[in-house]
Formats: sequence, C-alpha cells, structure tokens
Amino acid sequence: MIIVGERINGTGRRVREAVTARNTTLIAQEAVRQTEAGAHYIDVNAGTDPEREPDDMVWLVQTVQSVTERPLCVDSPNPEALRAGLHAHRGQALVNSASAEEGRLSTVLALAKEFDARVVGLTLDDSGLPKTAQQRVDIARRLGEAAAAVGLQQSDLFIDPLARAIGLENDQGIAFLEAIAGIRMALPDAHVICGLSNISFQMPARKLLNRTFLAMAMARGLDAAILDPLDQSLMAVACAGEVLLGRDDMCVEYIRAFRAGRLEPAPKAQ
Amino acid sequence: MIIVGERINGTGRRVREAVTARNTTLIAQEAVRQTEAGAHYIDVNAGTDPEREPDDMVWLVQTVQSVTERPLCVDSPNPEALRAGLHAHRGQALVNSASAEEGRLSTVLALAKEFDARVVGLTLDDSGLPKTAQQRVDIARRLGEAAAAVGLQQSDLFIDPLARAIGLENDQGIAFLEAIAGIRMALPDAHVICGLSNISFQMPARKLLNRTFLAMAMARGLDAAILDPLDQSLMAVACAGEVLLGRDDMCVEYIRAFRAGRLEPAPKAQ
Repeated sequence: MIIVGERINGTGRRVREAVTARNTTLIAQEAVRQTEAGAHYIDVNAGTDPEREPDDMVWLVQTVQSVTERPLCVDSPNPEALRAGLHAHRGQALVNSASAEEGRLSTVLALAKEFDARVVGLTLDDSGLPKTAQQRVDIARRLGEAAAAVGLQQSDLFIDPLARAIGLENDQGIAFLEAIAGIRMALPDAHVICGLSNISFQMPARKLLNRTFLAMAMARGLDAAILDPLDQSLMAVACAGEVLLGRDDMCVEYIRAFRAGRLEPAPKAQ
Repeated sequence: MIIVGERINGTGRRVREAVTARNTTLIAQEAVRQTEAGAHYIDVNAGTDPEREPDDMVWLVQTVQSVTERPLCVDSPNPEALRAGLHAHRGQALVNSASAEEGRLSTVLALAKEFDARVVGLTLDDSGLPKTAQQRVDIARRLGEAAAAVGLQQSDLFIDPLARAIGLENDQGIAFLEAIAGIRMALPDAHVICGLSNISFQMPARKLLNRTFLAMAMARGLDAAILDPLDQSLMAVACAGEVLLGRDDMCVEYIRAFRAGRLEPAPKAQ
C-alpha cells in the first residue's frame, strides 16, 4: 500500500498559519512524524492566496525535503504553484492533481512530463463529480489516454475515483468500489488512490467508517491512499490488509509493526 | 449481513461441560446475550460423544429456543445429532454443515430437505481442503447442483469457501476473496458465509486481522458470517460494512447502533 501523508495541508488553518509565518519547526515535525509512521509520500499543500502560493510551495518543498528522504506529493489547484514546487523538488514527485476538466488536464500532464513526475488523476470532468461506477471508469480511461499521449507511463498514473458521502447517497460506496475494480481492468498498470474521509461526511463514528472502507477498497484493488499516517488504527488496517492480500511476504512487516506496538493501542470507533 | 452466533459450541470445554451438566442457566444466558447483540441465528453444537450427542442436541435446541425467537444453526459432524436437533427445532433451521465429501453430501442435503431447513455447504470434498479459488468455486457448483437435485432452493444454500491460515500460506487471503466473487457468479442466489477466525491462526493481533478480513470479504460478496456477536468491534465493522454497501437504508441501523453505544468502546487490536 502506497501511503501519502496528508497532514501538511494549508487548507486547514494550523498549517496555513505555519506556512505564512515560515514556522519551520512545525512543518519539519509533521514531515518527520509522517515519515516515521510509514508514509511513502508527504503531501504538501500551502493553501495560501494564488499570488504568494508559488513562493510558499517552494519553501514547503525545501523545508520538508530537508528533513525526510521521502518524495513529496506536490498538491495545489494552482498550476503556477505546482510548477514552482516541482522545480524545487529533488527526486521524482507525485503531482496532485490532474482531472479531465478542460484546460486542467493538458496543463498538469505537461507539467508532470516536464518534471518527470508521477500524477494523481481525479475522475472529474466538466460535467462535474461522477455518480456511477461507469462514469468514473470512462473518465479514468480518458485520463489514461491523455497521459499516454504526452508520454507518461501508465504505472506513473494514480487514479482517484473520488469517494462521495455515503450518508447523503447510500449507493456511493458500491459505486466507488465497482469503479476501483473497473479502473483496474481498464488501466491494469495504473494505481488506484483515494482520500478516504469524504465517504463518512456528516456521519457518526467516522473513523470506523473510514477504516472499514479502506479494507473494502483494498479488497477491490485500491493500492494507494491519501490519509493521516498518525491515525494508528487506520494504518493498522492498511498493514493487516497487505497481509490478507498476500503482499507482505512471510508477514514480516505485520509482525514488525506488532512488535513496535504500531498495531496497538486499541483503535477508537470515533 | 446474516450473523450466526458461534458461542454455544461444545468443542470448547466450558460449553461442553454446561451441556453434560444440563446447565440451563449458562446456555440460556449465552443465547440471550447473542440475540441481544444482533445474531440472526444461534449456532448450537453439543460437542459430546456420538452416542449421547443426539440427546444433548435435543436439550440444547429446546433450551435455547425457550429463551430466543431466533432460529438455530444446528451444528454437528454427526447426522444422527443433526436429525435429532432438526426434529426438536421449531421454525426453519440452518443445518451446519454439508460438504461435497462422499456420503456426507447426500445425507445432509436429504436431512435439510426433510426438515425444510437451510444448509451450510463447505467447499470440501474427498480430496481435502481446497487451496485455489477455482477449486472452491468448482466444489460450490457441485454443492449447488446437488442441492437443486433434492429440491432445495439456491437461496437456502450458504456456501462456506473455508478460510485457511494466512500466516502459513500467504496466498490464502486472495484465494478466499476471489472464491467469494466466483461463487457469487456461479450461484447468484446462494449466500456466502464463513467462520473468520481461521484466517488469523498463529498470527499476532488476531482480532485486527479478523475485522479487516470481514470488511474485505464483504466487499467481494460475503453476506453471512459465523462469529462471536459479543465481539463489539467486529460487529461494528459488520454494521459499517452494511452502510458502505448501501444495504442500510438511510443508515438507520448504523445510527441506532451508534446511539446505543454499540460502535463503542474502542475495539482492541488484539
């Protein structure tokens, strides 16, 4: 399971204030903690106003890469911030994100190609957020074709089928799970990634839903997730899921996590 | 999710001693607690010597049915005990279990037909426990054909693809999950059931593996499970899984469970 640590995200006030104040200590600490918890990529999103965001992104990339060897997931709606972040990045970054929206698709794929980066592709186009599994698979296929057209490897594409709130539309869990399986068929070498927490929007015991959904999505082919790696009970499910999918040879990682106390303490339902 | 409560099983010493001592209090209490925790069937297995087991099974069936309205899962390797239990049972029982082994298949299916019972069919034949998904699906198909031949409805068949220890064979999780999907295709009206705990045999943090496996199996089509309904963290995953599969209309059951405190307290990893 490829874990993208989501904690350095300036759409939340605490991180945004740390970015504008150039609070190196807070950002570095979040980077180190997520690395130690097992993140493979560290997401960085400045969340600041467009005119200052490129500079903030450069500072974020440099600050985080000064304390971790992990590659970053350079995350912004703003192509200028993505470009600045990718330029400052050392090694192969993950760009977050392309979509099939007019304009955004070609711009972000061109950036990924220019900087030899991997890319998250959201199953979203100008008609909005898809509802059905088939709509998601169709958009994923278009993302795959567009990525191939600019010369990106399919294995460098991370498709996010976009989970929607189950409490508002009861069929969105099934639609998402079937989309994962369909995307795996359509783009066998691509990864399938998601942010988990939308699924439980406005529901009680959200962490229980998120954990359960992670296991279910893994069973259908999800192999990457954007999540909080400090949520130990969620990471424990990811670790157990790898064992159950036969991807943890001799259960070595699982037993190591157990011995390190990372499968404990008891997860909380909420 | 159809939950079969597994706690009244005389292969464990505590229950076997309660059966031989005719300890009505203990057995009735286990029946009531499992009913209150949400079991749809209460499994009864006397676990005693073959010559006394039919009498013990009758006592068990009558004792449990005196305190719960739920139907029972009459569980024995011994056809005479199954017959005695089914004869004593009021309502439609579930018989546990048929298999594709010579002799056992026709005997148990005939009993199920005679007593208008539903039946658990293990994917097991005279060549032993299957390893691959395809072997499990093939045996399930034979079970389905044999059940149809004696006039049982496919919807009264609960196929158990038999989970094997992941710690001993790392590919057995995938084989089991693919078997579920294959059985769903081959026998679309049948249920797929399993006992969960074999998967985590000899592993640390077994409950974490069992919970994660339940969610994964539900995502592939498992719709029944033999488990301990007093394991609140396991039942919470079953409840969350129903929401995520769109089978809990308006999330009513989930919210009810949350308000009743049944999604809490925090589950333990081990």
